[in-house]
Parts: sequence; C-alpha cells; structure tokens
Amino acid sequence: MLRERLIDAAERTIAANGLTSLRARDLAREVGCAVGTIYNVFEHLDELILCVGSRTLAMLDTALGAIRLGRPYGSPEDAADDLVRLALAYLEFAAKHTVRWRALFEHRMSEARSLPQWFVDQQHALFAQVERPLVTLLADLDPDARRTLARTLFSAVHGIVALGLEEKLVSLLLLELRSQLAATVRAIASGRDQLRSAAHLSHRSS
Amino acid sequence: MLRERLIDAAERTIAANGLTSLRARDLAREVGCAVGTIYNVFEHLDELILCVGSRTLAMLDTALGAIRLGRPYGSPEDAADDLVRLALAYLEFAAKHTVRWRALFEHRMSEARSLPQWFVDQQHALFAQVERPLVTLLADLDPDARRTLARTLFSAVHGIVALGLEEKLVSLLLLELRSQLAATVRAIASGRDQLRSAAHLSHRSS
Repeated sequence: MLRERLIDAAERTIAANGLTSLRARDLAREVGCAVGTIYNVFEHLDELILCVGSRTLAMLDTALGAIRLGRPYGSPEDAADDLVRLALAYLEFAAKHTVRWRALFEHRMSEARSLPQWFVDQQHALFAQVERPLVTLLADLDPDARRTLARTLFSAVHGIVALGLEEKLVSLLLLELRSQLAATVRAIASGRDQLRSAAHLSHRSS
Repeated sequence: MLRERLIDAAERTIAANGLTSLRARDLAREVGCAVGTIYNVFEHLDELILCVGSRTLAMLDTALGAIRLGRPYGSPEDAADDLVRLALAYLEFAAKHTVRWRALFEHRMSEARSLPQWFVDQQHALFAQVERPLVTLLADLDPDARRTLARTLFSAVHGIVALGLEEKLVSLLLLELRSQLAATVRAIASGRDQLRSAAHLSHRSS
C-alpha cells in the first residue's frame, strides 16, 4: 500500500538523519510516485511525520512496558524501584534510537496546526506507564493529580536524558548518567510529602 | 562593526522565528553585504548561531543571578528554597523568551564539528548557579560530584519546563506548571541521602 510505503521511507530517513533531512521530493523518488501523490495520501507533510512519530511512540511504549514488575507492588519501595527501572529503560531507548527519539520531540506542527487527538492520546498512554507505580507510591492521590504528576516525572527524566545525551557519549558517561538518573528519581520518590502537597495545590488552582 | 550587525540581525531572526528561519542570503540582504562576506567574518553559520546563543545564555545567567538570596544560607531549607526560586526563574525566562530559548537547545553543530570551548565554558557558568545552594544542601559533597549533580538538577528542571511549555499555554497551565516544578525540586532536595549516594557512586565509577 502506497501509504505504508511512504511511512516506511519517511521512517528510514528520519531514523537515519533526523527531521531536517526529510524532503517530499526524495520520498517520492524513493517510493516511485509523483510528489503531488504524497499530498493525496497525506493532508500535509506534518501528518506523515506524525505517523513516523507514532511508530516511535509505540516502540517506546513497548520498551517501557517490558520492564514493569509482573506482580502488584507490595510497598512504596517496590513502586520507587519500578520508577527507577522505567527511567533507566527510557535512557536505554534514547541512547539506542537517539536520532528518531530526538525527532519525536523536535517536530512542531507548521502553520499553527494543532496536534491531532489520536497522537495526543498516544502520548498520554505513554505517561500512563508512569502512573501505575504512583498508585502505590501515593495511594491517596486522585486520578487527575496522579496524571499530572506522572507527566511531570516523565518530563524531569526526559530532561536529564536529553541534556545528558548531548555530551558526545562514551560508555563511561552513560554509566554516570545512569546513576545520576536513578538517584534523582529515587530522591523524587522519597519526597512523597512534597509531591502530595503540590498535587493538592495544583488541583485547587485548576 | 559588521560582525556585531550580523549578530544583531541573526538574533532578531532567531528570537522572532527560530533557527530554521535563518538564511545567510536574508542576513546579507538585511545588513547590506554580500553573502560571501558573512563567511569572511564567521568561519561558518554555526559560529554566528553560537554568538546568538551566547547572548541568550548571558540573558539567562542574569535572570538566574538576579533571584539569588543576598545572604549566605542559614540552613539546608534556605538552600532548598533557593533551588525552587532558581527553577521558577528558569520557567519564567523560558515562557517569556520561548523561541530564542528553544533555539539554544535545538541547535546542533553541522558536519560533526564540536562546540567551541568558550561556549562550553559559558554553559558551565550557568550550571554553577545551581551549585551554590548545593554547597549548603550537601555540604560533604566534593566539588566534582557537586558539579555533576548541579547539571542533573538543571536538566530535570529543563525537562519539566520544556515539555510543559509544549502544551499551548494558557496562564492557568503556567500556574500548574509552577507548582509541579516547585514540588519536584523540593522533593529532590528532600532526598538528600539518595543524591549523596549517587554522587559517590558516580565518582567511584569515573
């Protein structure tokens, strides 16, 4: 199917060389169609890029889903352990798939288009992986506050990974990055009172 | 001076429309020189972009420097308060100067050039703002471990701000982002034992 072949070609280009290397003309040549045909299949190039982003999100979802404890958490410490594991799995993913992972975060819709709802929903499904340990870690949090907190933790981990991977990596640095990441997540998890009060504050203000 | 005028023009373009809008041809036209002249003044366009980035770093340094306590910290709680203030000042800066702040982090050197040392030094000076409260918060940390931890905290705050500002902002969201940010930094600061053990681990592994 032409649609799939175009996404495949765009995916190869983005995974190898990033977003800026994507050109409709090159894609058309690779797939063997006219440039105009791309715009019959996709509303605009942003839609095609989101389809590739969706595949990256699915890969990331699988990578994070694979490391979860198979059993219910017995204690807040179990849940904190799992948050650390999730953070480290995120780092591994980003280190292994750096170019396509970066493309996921650098892409901005052109002409003030907003992200389609299906893509936003897929992002939220990813944050939901972080929510599960929070149910045990902060049992008294209501679901809205938990969702917000999950997104915040995800963002903090993302920042440490993103700026950490900027330094041209040697494996020694990656080792250090791992221990920094684990410690920060553990420190956050240990500050349960602070997190709880923020959740209540946020909720009151919204 | 032509060099300054070129930086001024590039700064206006980047602050208004971001990195992708920067074209040597447009700059030459705006300043009234030949395109080739730009490459007499700057080794490559990356150098010009770094000069603009350097101005953004200086603005950020001023913004963070302005909010510090004028007196020495009396307690770890004072130091934690200051970490929260630094994080909130970072959020304000990013919310106010979103386009040029984003350009600072999205720019990558082309052709595998590495960042010049003067630029790396300026980045480190920024992280040093975060080190000061850490001296009180974790008095027993050696300077290397403190530097690493400062960079990690900066990155975590950066991640929360960067992904938080992606959601098209209304002021209500900004309010929520503030309280999430403050709580996370407070939670991290409260997990001093975890941070200390990571610092020692990192140091041993390097």
